[in-house]
Amino acid sequence: MTTPMVPEPLPLCLTLGDPAGIGPEIILKAWQALRDTGPKFFVIGDLVALGVDAHEIKAPAETHLRFKSSLPVLNLPLPEPARPGQPSLTAGKSIIQWIETGVRLVAEGEASGLVTAPIAKASLYAGGFKFPGHTEFLGDLTREVRHAGPRGPVMMLIAQDLRVALVTVHLPLAEVPNHITEAGIIHTAQVTAHALMQDFGIQAPRLAIAALNPHAGENGTIGREDIEIIAPAVAALKSQGLNVTGPAPSDSLFSPDMRSRYDAVICMYHDQALIPIKMLDFWGGVNVTLGLPIVRTSPDHGTAFDIVGQDIARPDSLIAAIKTAAALAARRAR
Amino acid sequence: MTTPMVPEPLPLCLTLGDPAGIGPEIILKAWQALRDTGPKFFVIGDLVALGVDAHEIKAPAETHLRFKSSLPVLNLPLPEPARPGQPSLTAGKSIIQWIETGVRLVAEGEASGLVTAPIAKASLYAGGFKFPGHTEFLGDLTREVRHAGPRGPVMMLIAQDLRVALVTVHLPLAEVPNHITEAGIIHTAQVTAHALMQDFGIQAPRLAIAALNPHAGENGTIGREDIEIIAPAVAALKSQGLNVTGPAPSDSLFSPDMRSRYDAVICMYHDQALIPIKMLDFWGGVNVTLGLPIVRTSPDHGTAFDIVGQDIARPDSLIAAIKTAAALAARRAR
Repeated sequence: MTTPMVPEPLPLCLTLGDPAGIGPEIILKAWQALRDTGPKFFVIGDLVALGVDAHEIKAPAETHLRFKSSLPVLNLPLPEPARPGQPSLTAGKSIIQWIETGVRLVAEGEASGLVTAPIAKASLYAGGFKFPGHTEFLGDLTREVRHAGPRGPVMMLIAQDLRVALVTVHLPLAEVPNHITEAGIIHTAQVTAHALMQDFGIQAPRLAIAALNPHAGENGTIGREDIEIIAPAVAALKSQGLNVTGPAPSDSLFSPDMRSRYDAVICMYHDQALIPIKMLDFWGGVNVTLGLPIVRTSPDHGTAFDIVGQDIARPDSLIAAIKTAAALAARRAR
Repeated sequence: MTTPMVPEPLPLCLTLGDPAGIGPEIILKAWQALRDTGPKFFVIGDLVALGVDAHEIKAPAETHLRFKSSLPVLNLPLPEPARPGQPSLTAGKSIIQWIETGVRLVAEGEASGLVTAPIAKASLYAGGFKFPGHTEFLGDLTREVRHAGPRGPVMMLIAQDLRVALVTVHLPLAEVPNHITEAGIIHTAQVTAHALMQDFGIQAPRLAIAALNPHAGENGTIGREDIEIIAPAVAALKSQGLNVTGPAPSDSLFSPDMRSRYDAVICMYHDQALIPIKMLDFWGGVNVTLGLPIVRTSPDHGTAFDIVGQDIARPDSLIAAIKTAAALAARRAR
């Protein structure tokens, strides 16, 4: 039997995230689920934290030979052993180094995309980390890397048939209205539209822009932002030739019928986007960073220190993040 | 064959709402759907606006004889004929009179509950109406009527297995945080808990209190209202013996598994409550006013002037509102 000469795709790179969180156990579960079928990946992190199924590799290219029999790890060891469920400030520098190394390997073409396991900001802040999260850190790390298209980072979440991209993310609700600007909406929509074309293979993306206020402000009687900020942004995007509708009342926007009418929703704030995502798929939502020179996904949950080591952490979201990263990377590689 | 002596229950009272909206056509469709099975109801409104299937009655008690063959109407005619799709300022006084009469008939025991078809506030404001909507108007109309339990009005919405009650309703998002008070949350929760016991037959209601900020404020790093206002309200409610949890991150609160853990969610703002409701049942959501001396429900949509007369308006929500009102009234009548 002859095998067609399809070159093996590059492996994905997984960063271990906080070694005291559920990262190590869900990575192991994801490897068990994917070892026979792929997508193939290696981990950057602490070899010991990943247990006996992990084996050290010296270069990403070894992943293909190793992946079926053991979990390949580029070992950048912690200064002291991780204690499951007990985050340690001494791990901060390693966690950051793993992310920086992962970005470099993807940017240099040794891995096809980056999948990040959860970090806990509190631990990193003690080590001098100054970003609100992974997304902004990755935007900063890749700012010198060439990128075709509008540059993000923009946070997208995906569950089932729903994609949402966020204009604001981790803000107190009281600060959201002041951070909704015409420029911010236009930028988020442009990055999203470009990513839908480049990474998702959607030729003419349809975007729905969510309103900020109930009933989209009901002609200005329930807040004026929808008239004064969001509607002008929609008009500007239309004048650029984009297929955009809105501002649309956010309560009507997420029914199955409505979801068939757009490829993504541009949401104004966190819970407007996350309520629908977690209702559609509580366990398997995926976070994708748009507008980066590299492919990057992650699970849509945190480190969950409180359930570490109980064998109840579910790998669904990480597995979905790995599969999504592989699909996006394959499309970019064409 | 002998029939057991079950007394015929009182009919429900439906108010016509704006006669230029979809009210008349969805009431007719609801009557066609329910004429053989009930629940039985009569309409207060303009006989002519309801077409040839409507017949005038002189008293609610005639409803039972009439209901199968024609739509019973207590006729309080408009000053000039309604024009479908074209709201008229001359209708305002009649619309208000229908609601006032309906409240009186239920309060006086001639009808078992009130179901209101949609009104358009703009038409009513011209006639001196000074309330944000039906809910507040009904609270005012019934303030002198004896009521057992904490007095609302509190707006509840129901879809499938989900009930949500709102601390704030039709406010611009920017004004929501300033209107979230410990007293307001406690009041909304008390009215809701009492209604769940009295009207819904739930002996020991479990309430989940939604957080205001993403991740419930993440220990105060994303807004302090969850720590400073909502958590103390939860503690106060617990000290009163109520089964209350929260503040809970609102994105995690509406998954099927979470919905099985509470009987109602106390939501902080409109879209936090309405996004889940309309995702679960876009067409059949029901609005219930809690903490009134009378049973009152309504569909969760508006007058929809733009689709009047096209025979596309769906009666699902009105039918669900009628059935819910009948069930609540039967429980109060015990």
